[in-house]
Amino acid sequence: MKTRQLIIGNKNYSSWSLRPWLAMSVAGIAFEEVLIPLDQPDTKEKILNYSPAGKVPILIDGDLTVWESLAILEYLAEAYPGAGLWPDDPVQRAEARSVSAEMHAGFGALRDHYPMNVRKRIAGRASTPAVDKDIARITEIWRQCLEASQGPFLFGTFTAADAMFAPVVSRFETYGIEVDDICRAYMDDVLTIPVLEKWYAAGEAEPWILEHDEVE
Amino acid sequence: MKTRQLIIGNKNYSSWSLRPWLAMSVAGIAFEEVLIPLDQPDTKEKILNYSPAGKVPILIDGDLTVWESLAILEYLAEAYPGAGLWPDDPVQRAEARSVSAEMHAGFGALRDHYPMNVRKRIAGRASTPAVDKDIARITEIWRQCLEASQGPFLFGTFTAADAMFAPVVSRFETYGIEVDDICRAYMDDVLTIPVLEKWYAAGEAEPWILEHDEVE
Repeated sequence: MKTRQLIIGNKNYSSWSLRPWLAMSVAGIAFEEVLIPLDQPDTKEKILNYSPAGKVPILIDGDLTVWESLAILEYLAEAYPGAGLWPDDPVQRAEARSVSAEMHAGFGALRDHYPMNVRKRIAGRASTPAVDKDIARITEIWRQCLEASQGPFLFGTFTAADAMFAPVVSRFETYGIEVDDICRAYMDDVLTIPVLEKWYAAGEAEPWILEHDEVE
Repeated sequence: MKTRQLIIGNKNYSSWSLRPWLAMSVAGIAFEEVLIPLDQPDTKEKILNYSPAGKVPILIDGDLTVWESLAILEYLAEAYPGAGLWPDDPVQRAEARSVSAEMHAGFGALRDHYPMNVRKRIAGRASTPAVDKDIARITEIWRQCLEASQGPFLFGTFTAADAMFAPVVSRFETYGIEVDDICRAYMDDVLTIPVLEKWYAAGEAEPWILEHDEVE
């Protein structure tokens, strides 16, 4: 078998790493997991052994290296068409790519304000107008997709778009963000994906506590 | 013929709009251009007529709508395979997707500090450590790609990766960023793409001056 390694950060904190890990796990694409704890003295050096961009996640698939969560998902969708990582319908696929790219490049206010922290429940952290705007757009995306597809996932079956938004679901859960019934049902369906529960259990068991976590 | 419209912002300022516009123009994919001037009282309303995300660029292709520059480029690469928007070689294609995704989601310090402004030449604006770090990574990407491909473009012929970086080339030119000979030759090859020169001429002729521009 050729080498297929996914290089990821801490499961408690690394929202970017969760995306391709979840997509590959749900799709049944086997891989060896290489976990590099973030914010350690040798973190940067270890990551640079795999990719010049110096950021996780990174996928090594045979003689090929691909980094950035969205690029990895596009690669997987193309290399493993049976995995169904994009919707078959071209109109839906275009929409799935659009909302995934919105997530990839956007929602910085939310990401800064509510960092992923799978083992914590921190209700009551006050929001900001910029964060509220991000939440409004994210839940609008979810509602529009779910109303069109009738769920359980954004485009019916699980796709790369759900992988892109899974860390947001985790943040909403950690920080007790209130959403409507449609979005709540979607969050529950994501949070009970069996392999995601395994990621959560591993994250909860990790010994590392990053600096931004200590302020809680 | 089916409707194919690309909705863009001002050519002087809208770096995101330039990306799919340039890719489609170089690839010879015909389209009707719809320009919506940014930061006007009715800008938001006009954009929302085309996409719920409320941001340009947006591509309407028949009954399909796709937004976000990277999603549009992935859509075009898939729908128009003869356009060569990604490299044929899988290893190179993975790298092209990775550096394009880095550009899509990253280099925020550079983008904030040196906004695209095709008609201006503003040498001497002091940099910051965060901006220097972005410039170092961007020029490292260019060097590595160009040394491997031998140019003239990042992966030999023009691809979506060049479209993604074209606005950075424009910023480097506007703000007089000094780069090595390899990167300088690349910048010159991008800046003299005939259709890019047409974009520049149109941007220079535009009447609108955005707020951030008045501080110069």
